[in-house]
Amino acid sequence: MRVWLPYDSLEEAERRLGGIPDGVEVALFTAQGEPMPASIADVELYVLPYMKDAQVVLERAAEMKSLRVVQTLTAGYENFVPLLPAGVTLCNAAGVHDASTAELAVALTLASGRHLDDYARNQSVGRWAPSLGIALADRRVLILGYGRIGAAIERRLAGFELASLTRVARHAREDPVVHKVSELPDLLPEVDVLVVVAPLTPQTQGLLNAELLARLPDGALVVNVARGGLVDTDALLAETAGGRLRAALDVTDPEPLPPEHPLWTTPGVLISPHVGGPSTAFFPRADRLVAAQLRRFAAGEPLANQIDWEDG
Amino acid sequence: MRVWLPYDSLEEAERRLGGIPDGVEVALFTAQGEPMPASIADVELYVLPYMKDAQVVLERAAEMKSLRVVQTLTAGYENFVPLLPAGVTLCNAAGVHDASTAELAVALTLASGRHLDDYARNQSVGRWAPSLGIALADRRVLILGYGRIGAAIERRLAGFELASLTRVARHAREDPVVHKVSELPDLLPEVDVLVVVAPLTPQTQGLLNAELLARLPDGALVVNVARGGLVDTDALLAETAGGRLRAALDVTDPEPLPPEHPLWTTPGVLISPHVGGPSTAFFPRADRLVAAQLRRFAAGEPLANQIDWEDG
Repeated sequence: MRVWLPYDSLEEAERRLGGIPDGVEVALFTAQGEPMPASIADVELYVLPYMKDAQVVLERAAEMKSLRVVQTLTAGYENFVPLLPAGVTLCNAAGVHDASTAELAVALTLASGRHLDDYARNQSVGRWAPSLGIALADRRVLILGYGRIGAAIERRLAGFELASLTRVARHAREDPVVHKVSELPDLLPEVDVLVVVAPLTPQTQGLLNAELLARLPDGALVVNVARGGLVDTDALLAETAGGRLRAALDVTDPEPLPPEHPLWTTPGVLISPHVGGPSTAFFPRADRLVAAQLRRFAAGEPLANQIDWEDG
Repeated sequence: MRVWLPYDSLEEAERRLGGIPDGVEVALFTAQGEPMPASIADVELYVLPYMKDAQVVLERAAEMKSLRVVQTLTAGYENFVPLLPAGVTLCNAAGVHDASTAELAVALTLASGRHLDDYARNQSVGRWAPSLGIALADRRVLILGYGRIGAAIERRLAGFELASLTRVARHAREDPVVHKVSELPDLLPEVDVLVVVAPLTPQTQGLLNAELLARLPDGALVVNVARGGLVDTDALLAETAGGRLRAALDVTDPEPLPPEHPLWTTPGVLISPHVGGPSTAFFPRADRLVAAQLRRFAAGEPLANQIDWEDG
């Protein structure tokens, strides 16, 4: 069976995947300027290169007459759907970015509280200017969105002597207790750090509006590692510009943030350029997913992470 | 019994300490410009204001004829020793800064790896420029100095999917395994993140010299939250300026770092201005220590954190 993999060489593929299952014939396509492999009519499983430009990686999808499975290396797959041939099984990379994104959420929280952004700017001018940090210790943290990444954030926060940790998701659950998103108005007044990691859906678009942000206590920090659209940018700008709230944002709305946007220069706002996913943590986790999917494919077993894309 | 406390009002002292033990008479001295209390000849237990300037807080020590105990709010006490009257019991604030310092060690590690210092500088000019982060996940971490803060760092790292964590201290131990400092040359080649939190002593001064730093693998990160003198600054500068190592330093040698020092502008070096201790985590922990010491003092029990300063 013919498989396309996004590695530079067969040796690299074998090393990173811990070998190739018997019966699998590999062709390589990384989309880094080279043409697609000649086996275009024969490819059955296609692991897309790690990029979001569907035009580059699926422009010849109509010629892939044997295609049965497309495996993305991103959690998001919306860009690929319009170019996918009917009947193809689509698998995403859910889980591959959990460690990287959860880690960044903690990094942003700590860096904002301990003023590492100010110190980095002071460093440029050789200025030694200590100030009192806001420790993560003793803070009341709320994680909004309690899927795999939310749980990964909680695991990372376990040793930091938090005053409390509250979980909120679309559906309430027990063990551990997860509150419904409709309870947010009552929960937010008791939250020092709000970590946003919920998916962007029509229901969550603009969820953190002026009214909800106003319920956070003075000095609270809003951390967003999900999607910029979950937070009303104008409302957040008003609260941070006035100095009442702080923010640490890996995602913004709009994105990329235009050079002249006021968020860039609002005191108490720390911005990273949507780098929750792209870290070294990605590679071994992506390799483990691809290796497992190849093994399942070769064995005729159901693949993991299947997306119900044709109903969507 | 007469006690001096560094709070602004008796109400604040009672609130923060959860009450004052019976029999204890409180006077307030915060060293913020006000004169010392009139009870100078009667003060028996003196909780020093949180500052290192011994001249300000102990200039009239010779008049404190009833003084039995001095309690510092810093872990370091060397500055106070020359002004202490003989026979006084000196107690330091060991433990009060553990959470704050351990948290900063993790913050520096994450911020350096995920390029938050670069992003902070890009933020000043409205530049959105993502780059591949070096995750803490999958890294081999060595904690050099395994006292209370080292253990507090380990607890905070527990959820980060490290490849390994190695502990090194002056004396080898088991359960958990702690290696002797003499094993460092053999251990360092397998370390991606070296976290320095050992005390500065004649034995550790300049410990991380050119020879030891050279044993770290390419791309390794040196994090120092202990004292600048543990690391040979010139050797670290040579390794970082060449791009072979990275560094995240809360302490430097010299300190404060002069404006023209090359460490400020060496790529891959992140500097915070000795802020391991001063964060909000300090206040409740200092309050808990002072409350416990007051209770012991009033009950005639031995005080905690006694320093053998007169033999030193």
